[in-house]
Amino acid sequence: MAPVGAKRNILERLDAGEVVIGDGGFVFALEKRGYVKAGPWTPEAAAEYPEAVRQLHREYLRAGSDVMQTFTFYGSDDKLENRGNNQRFSGRQINEAACDLAREVANEGNAMVAGGVSQTPSYLSCKSENEVKAIFKKQLDVFVQKNVDFLIAEYFEYVEEAEWAVQVLRTAKKPVAATLCIGPEGDLNGVSPGECAARLVRAGAQIVGVNSHFDPMTCVKTVKMMKEGVQKAGLKAHYMTQPLAYHTPDCNRQGFIDLPEFPFSLEPRILTRWDMQKYAREAYNAGIRYIGGCCGFEPYHIRALAEELAPERGFLPPASEKHGNWGSSLEMHTKPWVRARARRDYWEKLMPASGRPYCPSMSNPDGWGVTKGHADLMQQKEPTSQEQLRALFAKAKANQ
Amino acid sequence: MAPVGAKRNILERLDAGEVVIGDGGFVFALEKRGYVKAGPWTPEAAAEYPEAVRQLHREYLRAGSDVMQTFTFYGSDDKLENRGNNQRFSGRQINEAACDLAREVANEGNAMVAGGVSQTPSYLSCKSENEVKAIFKKQLDVFVQKNVDFLIAEYFEYVEEAEWAVQVLRTAKKPVAATLCIGPEGDLNGVSPGECAARLVRAGAQIVGVNSHFDPMTCVKTVKMMKEGVQKAGLKAHYMTQPLAYHTPDCNRQGFIDLPEFPFSLEPRILTRWDMQKYAREAYNAGIRYIGGCCGFEPYHIRALAEELAPERGFLPPASEKHGNWGSSLEMHTKPWVRARARRDYWEKLMPASGRPYCPSMSNPDGWGVTKGHADLMQQKEPTSQEQLRALFAKAKANQ
Amino acid sequence: MAPVGAKRNILERLDAGEVVIGDGGFVFALEKRGYVKAGPWTPEAAAEYPEAVRQLHREYLRAGSDVMQTFTFYGSDDKLENRGNNQRFSGRQINEAACDLAREVANEGNAMVAGGVSQTPSYLSCKSENEVKAIFKKQLDVFVQKNVDFLIAEYFEYVEEAEWAVQVLRTAKKPVAATLCIGPEGDLNGVSPGECAARLVRAGAQIVGVNSHFDPMTCVKTVKMMKEGVQKAGLKAHYMTQPLAYHTPDCNRQGFIDLPEFPFSLEPRILTRWDMQKYAREAYNAGIRYIGGCCGFEPYHIRALAEELAPERGFLPPASEKHGNWGSSLEMHTKPWVRARARRDYWEKLMPASGRPYCPSMSNPDGWGVTKGHADLMQQKEPTSQEQLRALFAKAKANQ
Amino acid sequence: MAPVGAKRNILERLDAGEVVIGDGGFVFALEKRGYVKAGPWTPEAAAEYPEAVRQLHREYLRAGSDVMQTFTFYGSDDKLENRGNNQRFSGRQINEAACDLAREVANEGNAMVAGGVSQTPSYLSCKSENEVKAIFKKQLDVFVQKNVDFLIAEYFEYVEEAEWAVQVLRTAKKPVAATLCIGPEGDLNGVSPGECAARLVRAGAQIVGVNSHFDPMTCVKTVKMMKEGVQKAGLKAHYMTQPLAYHTPDCNRQGFIDLPEFPFSLEPRILTRWDMQKYAREAYNAGIRYIGGCCGFEPYHIRALAEELAPERGFLPPASEKHGNWGSSLEMHTKPWVRARARRDYWEKLMPASGRPYCPSMSNPDGWGVTKGHADLMQQKEPTSQEQLRALFAKAKANQ
Repeated sequence: MAPVGAKRNILERLDAGEVVIGDGGFVFALEKRGYVKAGPWTPEAAAEYPEAVRQLHREYLRAGSDVMQTFTFYGSDDKLENRGNNQRFSGRQINEAACDLAREVANEGNAMVAGGVSQTPSYLSCKSENEVKAIFKKQLDVFVQKNVDFLIAEYFEYVEEAEWAVQVLRTAKKPVAATLCIGPEGDLNGVSPGECAARLVRAGAQIVGVNSHFDPMTCVKTVKMMKEGVQKAGLKAHYMTQPLAYHTPDCNRQGFIDLPEFPFSLEPRILTRWDMQKYAREAYNAGIRYIGGCCGFEPYHIRALAEELAPERGFLPPASEKHGNWGSSLEMHTKPWVRARARRDYWEKLMPASGRPYCPSMSNPDGWGVTKGHADLMQQKEPTSQEQLRALFAKAKANQ
Repeated sequence: MAPVGAKRNILERLDAGEVVIGDGGFVFALEKRGYVKAGPWTPEAAAEYPEAVRQLHREYLRAGSDVMQTFTFYGSDDKLENRGNNQRFSGRQINEAACDLAREVANEGNAMVAGGVSQTPSYLSCKSENEVKAIFKKQLDVFVQKNVDFLIAEYFEYVEEAEWAVQVLRTAKKPVAATLCIGPEGDLNGVSPGECAARLVRAGAQIVGVNSHFDPMTCVKTVKMMKEGVQKAGLKAHYMTQPLAYHTPDCNRQGFIDLPEFPFSLEPRILTRWDMQKYAREAYNAGIRYIGGCCGFEPYHIRALAEELAPERGFLPPASEKHGNWGSSLEMHTKPWVRARARRDYWEKLMPASGRPYCPSMSNPDGWGVTKGHADLMQQKEPTSQEQLRALFAKAKANQ
Repeated sequence: MAPVGAKRNILERLDAGEVVIGDGGFVFALEKRGYVKAGPWTPEAAAEYPEAVRQLHREYLRAGSDVMQTFTFYGSDDKLENRGNNQRFSGRQINEAACDLAREVANEGNAMVAGGVSQTPSYLSCKSENEVKAIFKKQLDVFVQKNVDFLIAEYFEYVEEAEWAVQVLRTAKKPVAATLCIGPEGDLNGVSPGECAARLVRAGAQIVGVNSHFDPMTCVKTVKMMKEGVQKAGLKAHYMTQPLAYHTPDCNRQGFIDLPEFPFSLEPRILTRWDMQKYAREAYNAGIRYIGGCCGFEPYHIRALAEELAPERGFLPPASEKHGNWGSSLEMHTKPWVRARARRDYWEKLMPASGRPYCPSMSNPDGWGVTKGHADLMQQKEPTSQEQLRALFAKAKANQ
Repeated sequence: MAPVGAKRNILERLDAGEVVIGDGGFVFALEKRGYVKAGPWTPEAAAEYPEAVRQLHREYLRAGSDVMQTFTFYGSDDKLENRGNNQRFSGRQINEAACDLAREVANEGNAMVAGGVSQTPSYLSCKSENEVKAIFKKQLDVFVQKNVDFLIAEYFEYVEEAEWAVQVLRTAKKPVAATLCIGPEGDLNGVSPGECAARLVRAGAQIVGVNSHFDPMTCVKTVKMMKEGVQKAGLKAHYMTQPLAYHTPDCNRQGFIDLPEFPFSLEPRILTRWDMQKYAREAYNAGIRYIGGCCGFEPYHIRALAEELAPERGFLPPASEKHGNWGSSLEMHTKPWVRARARRDYWEKLMPASGRPYCPSMSNPDGWGVTKGHADLMQQKEPTSQEQLRALFAKAKANQ
C-alpha cells in the first residue's frame, strides 16, 4: 500500500489538506484483553507482553490508522511508581519498548510514530513547574533517542499542565500536538475551550484539540469552540479529536469518569461503527483533519472512520478486505432477511435497543434524582410529621 | 501454573466434578479486529493471519479457558466455497492451520484442544445424509491427524443434522460434545430442548447443551430443560453452555439473528463482566460444568467466569494479575469517588444506562408494533374513511 | 340518540351480534378527582358527593358507554366497615345512592344499568360459603329493589368466590356477567383461565371474562383462553374484557398490584387513545363483544373504543362531537407542523417517549435484578472474601 | 373552611408572604372528559356544558386552589370564529357563562376569581396594536361587568403581545398577572426571560411568570431568570408558575407543541403526584408564591401542591380527606406488601417504569437522529457509490 503522503511529516500532510486517521484506545482495549489494570491504567505491558501490544498496533494499522502512538500513556515515572507490586521493568525500559513496538508496526505500513505524554501525579500534588517539566523531559529523552516522528501531549484536565508539557516537547524540534480531556465547559479550572486552545498554540502546539472523557459529537463541538478561540486570538492551528467510543449525554464537566458506570459497566454506551461514520463526517465538516479515537475504540471503530472518509482520502484501509461498505458483506448471509440489511439506509436509520428493559437510558452523575435540587431535597428530613399533618387536617375539617 | 486436572481428558475432569471453562467467540471478536468478514463468517484467517488468531487464543488461555477450540467454525468445504474471491487457501489448509494454532497455545498452559464442526449449507440445501456426513468426515480427518483432545459439534439449528455430525465424530473414539443454537422453544422444526438433548445423547454425545443465539440466562434455562429431557429418558450426560454475550430478552425462536440490530449494531446489548459472573453462578447452580461463551464474548468475559468460579476451582486465571476482584483495582484510581467503587456491592447492584435516550430498550423482531397482531393491523387499510365517519356522526347528531 | 338496540336486554343485544361498550374505571378516576381514598378504595362518594359520581357517569355515557355500572365496587358491608372514620352513610344508603345515580344518567341516553358486586374480605378471612353469600345477597337486594337491568360479579382473584357470587346473583332472574381479575396464569390458586371460565358458566353466568389487573392485550389473550376452555367443555357464553388502562408487560400473577409503582406512580404506563383503538380491534377480532375498561380508564379511553368500533356499531358516541377521528381536529391547529399530524398513519405508528431518561421501561415486581435468580443471588453473602481470593491468586502466581 | 387570608385581594395576600395555589389545566382535562376539541382548544363548553366546567372548578377548589380562573382561554372573538360549525353561543355569552361558573364555585369556598385572556390570532396575522387591544378590551368588559377579583394575561409566545394585553387589563384598576409560555431560551423573537419580565412589569403587571409549554423544573428555572431580570432592572414584582404536568427534557424553544407526541400521545410523560411535591418545594425555594398548573394538570396534581406546602400554609385542602399524606392511606390496603409502601421514603425515591420497552425515553423534536447534524446527514445522498468504493478497494489491494 502506498497512498499519497508517504514520508512527509504530519504538518506537511495536514497543510496539504490530507485527512490523518489516528489510532484507537490502548488502555481500555488491553484491559479487556487481559494486559492492563483498571485503576492505575499504566502501560508496563509494552515491556511485559510485547506480543499483545504489537498485535493491537497492527490491528489499528490494518484499520487505517496513519499514526502509531507509543503506548506510553501514564508512562511517567511518578505514575508508574503507583502501579502495584509487579515492577519488573523501569520507566525507561517501558518507554523504550513502547517506541520500538510502535516503530516496528508503523514500518509494516506507511504510518508515523507519535510519542505521547499525559498528565502527571506530580502536577496534581502541586509540585513546581520545574519538577513537572523534568518528568516530561525524561519521557521526551526516550522519544528523541528513538526518533519518533512527532509528539503528542494528551489527556490533560488542566490547561496549565498541558502548556508546560508543550513547552518541554517543542524543544525537540518535532511537530507537537496537544489535546485536553475537556468538554464544552472547559478545563477543571473553568478555562473555556477557546481560551485553552489559544494558550496551547501560544505555548507551541501546532495541532490542538481534545481526547477522551466525552463522546464524539461533544468532542467535535468542543473543538469547534477551540477553533473559534484560536481564530479570535489571531492565531493558526490544525485541529484534532480523539474522543471516547461511549455515548455520554449525561456527563458533567468531569466527563465519563463521573458516570456511575465508569469503568466496568460502560458496555451499553459503546458506539456502533455507524455512529463512528457519523462522527467522522461531522468532524470533517467542522474542519478537523486529524481524526482518531480514545478509550472504548476498537480496531473496527477506526476502520469505520477510514471507510467514511475513503472518498476524501482516495483509498480504503487494508481491513476493509474483511468488511463490506455499509453492511454489504451481508449479501453473503444465509438468511434472506439478513441479506436484506446489506444497505446504507438500513444501518443509518436503525435505533439500536439496549436489551435492558430494567435499566434507564441515562444515569445521573450528580445523584439519583432528576436534578441536583431533587437530590438535595431527598436528603431532607420530612418537613412535617404525619401527626402534625393530621392535626392540620383536623383543624381544616373543623373549619368546614 | 499446574492446577489439578492436568493430562486427564475432558470426561475424566467432568466426572470428577471439575468446572471446565470454555473459550469465547472467535468470529465476532476477529471481525472487530479486522480478520473475519461478517456475512460469510468463515475462518480462513487461521491460515491468512495466524498471528491474529494465535493472539486471541492466548488471551482466552490467559483469561482462564481450559479449552482451545480450533478456529474451524463454518470451516466445511461447502461453506468455504461461498466466502468470496480471496481463496488463497484450501479447506484442508485452513483446518490444519487452525489445529496447529490451538495446540501451540494450549501447550503454553494446560488447556485441551477441541476440534469443532458446525452446521453446513449442504444440510440446508437438502443434500442426503451420506453427503452431509462426508462433509463432516473431511474435517474430522484433519482433527484425527492433528490429534485433538476431543470434539464438538456446535451451532446446529436442527437436531437432525447435529445427530448426523455426532454419529460421524464418535467414530474417532474421542469424547464428543454437541450444542445446538436453540432456546426454550426448541429447534427450528419445533423439537423441544429435552427431546433434542435425549436424541443427541443417543447419537453418542457425552456432553450436551447449547451455544450462541441467546443470552446466558436463556441458555441456562434451555439447558435445564435439556437436563430434564435426558433424565426423563433414563439417560446420562454432562452439560455445557456457550451463550452470546448479548442481552436478548426480545428474541423469537431464531435468536439474535432476527434482531434488527444483528450483526452491526448490537453494542448496547453487550454484557458486562458482572453480568458474566451472575451467569457463571447460575450455570453452576443448574449443574452445568462446562461453561464458556460464544459470539460477543471477549477475553475479559471469560476471565469473569473464571473469577466467579475461582472458589470452586481453587485458582484464579493468569489474567487476574491485571484485574482486581469485583473492581478492587480501583483502589488505585486518582479520584476518591472512583476509589469508592472498589467493592462488590457497588457493581453487583448497578443498573447501567445505555446513554441512548432516543433508543428503546427492546426491539421487536416481528415488526415495529407491540405485538404481531398490531403489526398486522398496521398494514390494514383504514377500516372506514373520514367521510364515512362524518356521515355516521351527522346521523348520530340527527338522532339526538 | 336512538341507535338500534334500545330497550332490549344485554343478552338479546349480544345474541344479535351487537358490540356493547362498557364504562371505564371509577375508583381510580375519582381518586384523582378527590373523592375516593386509595387503600380502602370504597365507594361511599356515591352518597357523599353524588354530583361528582353523576358527572363521571355522564362523561362515560357521552363517550359511548352502553352500560352504567353502579358505583358499588367494594361496596359490601364487610368492606365498608374498614374505610376509615368518616362513616356518615350505611352500606345500604351507599348502594341505593349508587343505583339511583346510574339509573338517572342511563336514562339521559340509552344505557343499561348493571349492579355490581366484587370480592369480599369475608372470603379472604375464610368465612363460610353461607356467610359470604349472605354478604352478596345484601347488595343484590338493593339491585333488585332498584330494578337494575343486569348484574356483574367482578374483580375476583379466586374463581371459587366468583362462583358463589354468581350463584347468588342468578337468583334474581336477571342476566349475569362474571369477570375475574386474572391473567394467563390463572387465578391465585392456579386454576387456569379456561377452567375458571367453564366453572363460571356452570355456576350460571351468561357472560364471562376478565377485568382489571392486566393491560388490554394481556386481557384479550386471557379471554381467548377462557373461550377455548368454555368451548372445550361443550358450553356456551358471551365474552367481555374490562382491562386496565396501564401497560403491564412486567407483571407477575398478581397483576399491577405487585408493580412497585402501584398505585401512585403508574402515570408513565397510561395507555393512549391509539393504544385503546388497537385494543378494541383486537378484542373484536377475538370474538369479544362486551368491551369496556377498568382502573386507569378515563372517558376519552372509552370514546376511543367507541370510535374504533363505530363502523361495526353504525354510530359515533356523542363526545365525538369534540374529537376528530384519528386526530383530524388538528386540521384547525395554528402551527402547520401540528396540522400535518391530522392523520391516522402518524398516530398509529408513533412510539411515544416517556420523557424520563433516568427511569427504566420495566420494573421488576420480584426484585431489582433481572431475574428472580439474580435477586436471590444478590442476597447471598460474598462467596469468598477478598483475602481468600488474594491467597488463591498468590498460589496461582507461585505455580506459573 | 376559613383559613387566614379571606377577603383580602391577591396582592395583599402575596405581600403578606402567603402561598397562593393556582388551579390546573382546563382545555386538556376537558378534552379527555369529552367537552373540548383538540386543535381549536376553544372554551365554548362554558356555555354548552356548564355542569362539566362547574364540576372541574369544584374539584380544583377541593384540591386546594385559591384561584378560579374563568374558563376563557382562547375565548377572544377572533379565535372563537375558527372553532368549527357548532356555534350556538356568541363570544360574549361564553365569556359571561365562564365568569358565572367561576364565581359560583369560588363562593363555595374562599377562592378568588381571575379573568383570563390569552394570545390572539389577530396578533399572529399582524393586525395593528389597536386592533389587537380592541380584542382584549371586549373580554375585559365582561370581566369588569362580572366583577372578577383580578386579571391574568397568559399563554403568550411573544412578549410584545403580552405587553399590549397588560396595558389593556390594567385600565380596570384590578391586580394584573402576566405569564408567557416560554422557557429559558426566551420568547419566539429571542427576547430573554429576564428582559421579558422587566418589560411586563413596566407595562403594568404586578405578578409575572410563565405558564404551559415546559415541565415544572424548566418553568421554575425560567422564572428564576425572570426574577434576576426584574431585580437587575431595579423593579419589583411577585412571581408565578403554571407549568405543564408533562416531562419535557427534550423540548426546543417551542416547548411541547413541537414534541412528536403532542397532543395525543403525551401520556407516558405525565407527572406523578410526587413529582408535583418536588415542584412545589422547588418553586417555593425559588421565591415563587403563586404556584399552579396548566395543561396536563388534574385535580390530584393541585392537591399535591397544597399538601407539600401545607406546613407553610397552615392547612390541608378539603380533598386531603380522601388522600393520605405521602401514601399513608395504603395502611388500609389488603396486601401487606402494598401496606409497606405507606411511607414518604418509598414514593420519593421510586423511579417509575414506562411499561413501554419498545419506546425511547426521549423523542427528538428536530428529527429522528441524535442531532440536527445527523438528521441533515441522513438526507444526503450516499457520498460515494458501492461501485466507486469497490474500485478504491481494488486499487488499494493492487498497491499492497
